[in-house]
Formats: sequence, structure tokens, C-alpha cells
Amino acid sequence: MPGEFNVIRRFFEEPFTEHFSNNENVDLGIGDDCALLNLCGTDQLATSVDTLVAGVHFLESAPADKIAQRALRVNLSDLAAMGAEPIGFTLALTLPEENEAWLQAFSSGLLSCAKEFDIPLVGGDTTRGPLSITVQVMGKVPVGKALIRSGAKVGDTVYVSGALGAAAAALPLLEETSLTSDESELLDQYYQPHPALKLGIALRGIATAAIDISDGLLADLGHICQRSNVAAEIDWQRIPLLNALKNCSDKAAIQKCALAGGDDYQLCFTAPEGLNSEVEGFNIFPVGKIMSKVPEDKANAVTVIESGIPLQFSEAGYRHF
Amino acid sequence: MPGEFNVIRRFFEEPFTEHFSNNENVDLGIGDDCALLNLCGTDQLATSVDTLVAGVHFLESAPADKIAQRALRVNLSDLAAMGAEPIGFTLALTLPEENEAWLQAFSSGLLSCAKEFDIPLVGGDTTRGPLSITVQVMGKVPVGKALIRSGAKVGDTVYVSGALGAAAAALPLLEETSLTSDESELLDQYYQPHPALKLGIALRGIATAAIDISDGLLADLGHICQRSNVAAEIDWQRIPLLNALKNCSDKAAIQKCALAGGDDYQLCFTAPEGLNSEVEGFNIFPVGKIMSKVPEDKANAVTVIESGIPLQFSEAGYRHF
Repeated sequence: MPGEFNVIRRFFEEPFTEHFSNNENVDLGIGDDCALLNLCGTDQLATSVDTLVAGVHFLESAPADKIAQRALRVNLSDLAAMGAEPIGFTLALTLPEENEAWLQAFSSGLLSCAKEFDIPLVGGDTTRGPLSITVQVMGKVPVGKALIRSGAKVGDTVYVSGALGAAAAALPLLEETSLTSDESELLDQYYQPHPALKLGIALRGIATAAIDISDGLLADLGHICQRSNVAAEIDWQRIPLLNALKNCSDKAAIQKCALAGGDDYQLCFTAPEGLNSEVEGFNIFPVGKIMSKVPEDKANAVTVIESGIPLQFSEAGYRHF
Repeated sequence: MPGEFNVIRRFFEEPFTEHFSNNENVDLGIGDDCALLNLCGTDQLATSVDTLVAGVHFLESAPADKIAQRALRVNLSDLAAMGAEPIGFTLALTLPEENEAWLQAFSSGLLSCAKEFDIPLVGGDTTRGPLSITVQVMGKVPVGKALIRSGAKVGDTVYVSGALGAAAAALPLLEETSLTSDESELLDQYYQPHPALKLGIALRGIATAAIDISDGLLADLGHICQRSNVAAEIDWQRIPLLNALKNCSDKAAIQKCALAGGDDYQLCFTAPEGLNSEVEGFNIFPVGKIMSKVPEDKANAVTVIESGIPLQFSEAGYRHF
């Protein structure tokens, strides 16, 4: 099957863009971390939606408070990747039954996360059906200041905002009941990723492109390269890794998780070499550089080197289809 | 089970409102047709989300183009009920498989509806799982001009924007393959309700309260009464009905469909007697009046009279739980 990206492009992005390309309300449509809508001259509305389906994105038996946290956090990460400030979110919740304990835990986890990031729940829908959670976040960003995917320049440095691979390494642990402290740390990264909202805002006017890592560094940096018409080279030895990941896995598994595993929700962004003092105090890790695209090269635009030698990967990140 | 409204109130509206009641970005939160968010001084963002689940809100075998139309139209109706102008929508689509013919028909129906109401698709998510469609619409309305539920005044006239009951009468016909022309007309009302967007905009500054009729006139006018702290009296003989409905049903069924059947998505609004010329040219039907609430009366705030005699109804509208 051609994959999620092809479904979106063929049945939604292309036909709608063809008709609505000059719409005055849409500053940025399908294809970035958020859409940008124009309500007035000063701020743009940034918005993004994600669905988590039981049995596909999480186990039906997973703790409801943690699922709520994850559902909101992965969406907030899209606002972070645009440099947007959260203003509110909606929740469309489909439930097979009215399970009081589940609802109480879900509500509690959601409220706890909403308080942490100061984002109010403003509306929603509850329906009966197979368990599924759709969260849509809304944020605002001054006109012209949003971080988008298409501005990376040859010579820019590629940065990530934190350790990679932990969430992917946690996937085999989701049904485990007895965990080591390292395994618990990995699982926490899976359930409670840390949307880099403050970093995103600090990067306004500084980063040339940004994305949040939901499908894996190679795939997501690949999106930046595609939209910016450039290539990128990553230095494996500069990728930040948690000790918990190093302790739990062999090198091949670590590389697969850190480069092709999704779900970390760190930011990946590009900026001219030598970031200025405005991002001092944030964790940022230079991991590679933006290169010229070789026009005839059909292969992945992102290469990984280790001690000067290119590495090969067969898996370019998790895809829904 | 206490119903959808109780789930929303208890697990979401109350705990979040308690914490976020003074949030500067939220002008109107959970509990109206749309939330109203404050991005800048001139316009408010109006937004609403609805989920349609296969097997609950539509048949899995239903025509994909019509389901797409319905999913977008029921959301646009929420913008109409706020007097908001559409600016964009998102789609979160969960599919059990990548069915090309289904996707083509769905995309085609969605685009056709989006063109009709000039609302671009700006983003979304596609996931694998049981068939479910979540649409979130976004619109804008000048600050202070939105139609909300809480402004109905004693002495106001109650209006509806068109014929009621047709969509509810169509429910038993959804699996029929051979339909009379009357039955086809009813089914069209179900699949393609007509969001009264232009009327909603015309009613800015005129209507004292408004809601779209998704759960039935009695239930939805009841929401206006509850939020406005008033009661209402409806005159059955003034309710507009399609001939197709009168031809297909007996009087008891017609009354049940028109008063307690949901899914019509006409506007119900209140305004001082004698609307001015700004709503000339729109179909509006005066069907009742707003009365003082009797403080000790625990019964439904909406009564229906026929030839001066109150009618009794046991069913106050469709509820998801």
C-alpha cells in the first residue's frame, strides 16, 4: 500500500489545494506540523489534529491517565514545531461504554497535562464506539514568525532538542508489568513526551526550518529536506541518547530506535551555525548539517555517517499505512 | 446511564472550568455550539468538532460521498448557530483499510461540500482503525457579535429556519434500496442538511440566542432556556413540515420526528417580536415565544401547545449515551 502520506496527498492535499490555493484565510495549509490561518493582521492561528486509536496507537488496557497525557502532548509538540503559543484544545472522545473509573483517570491525566502547559479545553464531542481519542490543539504565533519546514539552507546546522529513541525502545515494554528502572524511564518517554514549546517560541526568527520527530529523525528530517529542496547529513556519534536506552539495547537496536523510531516528539530544526544567546539555557544538540541536494539522486535525502562512513537503513520510520 | 451531557459536564466541563475560568484566550468555553477564542482585538475564532462513528451515526455501507457531506455540514451548522463565517476545517479520518473507491468518493463529496460553502481543508490526520470521521470547523466572528445560547429574553419570539423532522423520519429508510420520491426527499435532508450560514451572519446583533437543532427542537430549545434561565412555549400548528414528511407518516410519528427528532440542523433562535428588514429574503418561521421560568418547576422548560392544549412528550431528543 502506498502509505499514509500518499493517501493524504492524493485524496485530500492535491484536490483541495487545486481549488483553494488562493484562499485568503489560509496562510499555510496541509503539509506542515500545523496549518496557519489568518484571522487578523497581528497573529496567526496555528492548529493541528491527531487521533490515537485503541489497538493501533495504544493498548486498550493502557492506563487512561497516561493515554490522555500522551494524546495532548503529541499535539502540543506540533505547536512547538511551529513556534506557536498554546491557546486551547478540543477533545473528540469515542468510548465503547461509560466506564466511570476510566473517565475519571482520563480526565485527571488530561487536566494535569493541560495545567502544566496552561492550555484550556474549550470544546469537544463524546460519542459511543470503538475507543479513540482525537485532540486538536490551537495556538497563536505572530504573523511571519512561524517555524515552517521549507526554509532550511545549505550550510545550516541540524539540531535536535533532546535524546532520541527512548519512546521506540519502550514499545515492546507496553504490556510488561515488572520493569527495571531503565525500562520505566523509557516508558515515561513514550507516555509523557516533553513538547518543546518554550524552545519553539525562542527559535522564532532564528531557526530556518523545524519539525517535531513523530515518525523518526530520518523520516522527519527528510520532510524538511523535501520541502526545502536540500539534503542533510547526520553524524551518528552526535545523536543524544539516554543511558537507559544504552543499557537496555544492543547497538543495532539503538540505532534503529534513535534514527527510525518515532514517538520521541523532540524538535528537529535547522539554523545557521553558531546559535546566538537567545537559545542559551535550552538543551539543543547539533547532530548534522544541511547539504546541497544532488538533483538526480532519488535516494533518501538524509544520510547518516559514523566515523566518516555512511550507514545504511532499510526502515525510514513508522508509517500508519 | 446519565447521558452524554452528564459525562461532558462531570469529567470535562466542571474540572477544566474550575481551573481555567479566568483564561484570557477563551471568551466562551465548553457548552455552546462553538467555543470562542480570542486571538486579537477584532475577530474571535469560533470552533466546533463532531465525530461520526460507523455503526453508530451512519451505516458502514453508506455512500462515502454522502457521509463526507454530512460530516462537514453538521459542523458548519455549528458555525451558523454562532453567526460565524467559515475559514477552514480539519479532518481526522480513521479507516479499517485503504479502500481506493471509498476514499475517492469520500474525497469527492467532501470537496463538493467545501466548495459550496467556500471552506478549505487545512489539515488532518489519517489513521488505521474502525471507520470514524472527526471534522473540526473554524470560523471567525467580530468580537461581541457571536450568537450564543444565553441571551433569550422573556417576550422574545422563537424562530426556526426551516422544516423539521425530515431527517429523523429518514432514519428507518437508510437501508432501503427502493424509495418513493417523498422518501428520497427525506433521505436528502438527512445526508445533506443545509447549514444556515448566511442567516446566522445576518442575525448578528439581532438574535438574542441561537442554537442548531441537532438533538431535536425540544432538547435544543431547552438548552437555550437553561442557559438563558427562561422557559418557552411552542405552538405545534406553526412548526414548518415538508409535504414529504406529512405524506409518509401518521400524526404521532410526525410530531415525534419534528419535535424530538434530531439531525435537521435548522437554526432555532430567539429575537424580539417583529424582525427587521435585515432578515428579509431568509426562510424564518415563528414557532413560539419565550416565557418566564417558574422557579420551582423541575419539568422541561419547553412546553408544546396544540389548539391551546399542552401536549406531552416522553422523549426529549436523541442522546449519544
